[in-house]
Amino acid sequence: MAHMPDLTIRPTAQRKADALARLSTRHQDAWVATADGGAAHLVPLSIAWVDERLVIALDGTSVTARNLAATVRARVAVGPTRDVVVADVVLEATLPVADAGEVGEAYAAQADWDPRASGGTYQYLVLAPRRIQAWREADEIAGRTIMRDGAWVV
Amino acid sequence: MAHMPDLTIRPTAQRKADALARLSTRHQDAWVATADGGAAHLVPLSIAWVDERLVIALDGTSVTARNLAATVRARVAVGPTRDVVVADVVLEATLPVADAGEVGEAYAAQADWDPRASGGTYQYLVLAPRRIQAWREADEIAGRTIMRDGAWVV
Repeated sequence: MAHMPDLTIRPTAQRKADALARLSTRHQDAWVATADGGAAHLVPLSIAWVDERLVIALDGTSVTARNLAATVRARVAVGPTRDVVVADVVLEATLPVADAGEVGEAYAAQADWDPRASGGTYQYLVLAPRRIQAWREADEIAGRTIMRDGAWVV
Repeated sequence: MAHMPDLTIRPTAQRKADALARLSTRHQDAWVATADGGAAHLVPLSIAWVDERLVIALDGTSVTARNLAATVRARVAVGPTRDVVVADVVLEATLPVADAGEVGEAYAAQADWDPRASGGTYQYLVLAPRRIQAWREADEIAGRTIMRDGAWVV
């Protein structure tokens, strides 16, 4: 893609601020990609951003929950395709909805549904970002990494 | 998610028509998920819909191109998270941009860039859908499959 750099390219600090704003937005969805051997799975899920962790809620029998239990990692995309935040995450904790404490409160406050009402085999998956990238168009591909090895670049 | 069915649930034929309209839209992007063992990769890419195939264009050295060459499959999502078309696809052909004929013309006509101008190691990947699902909110999860085993349900 032959776009040339121009003055609309955001500095790293602005990309971080924009990414945090997006992750914290109420009723924010993400595309969550997981793998089972050579097969990628991909679903849209409501997220919450709690203490610098991405939280999703799933039935423990779902493909995404099973893949995360097996591989401990996922790649999560938030935002439209021309203004994306992409996080490579690792599974840090799995909390049954009946015993999730503040995570359950925080999820209900940000997401548009409360999985505690679904009960049963639903669980929160707490995902720790290891790398986060943010870019809009091709001219922002360079400099897109705003978190590396779990630490913010700025 | 405790949404109850209501009269906004689209019949299968309408979902197919909506999906085809979305896939054929000019300057349409998709989220393309591929796998390398336990690691999922996920990137936004411009698509074209040509003869009932999804066409993407990539540098052959990219992670997505390498994963597709190795596993022959991907999962592709088009549209916003509350009005999605999700296709499980298999790699049918890989065409160098210098020798892509009508596929190159069709891609340039629908996508917002022409990879033939990039040359070098760029290639078109022709992806044949095996299953396509379309849903908006939780109340449309039932009945979301509009193509199965490569054949439209309606």
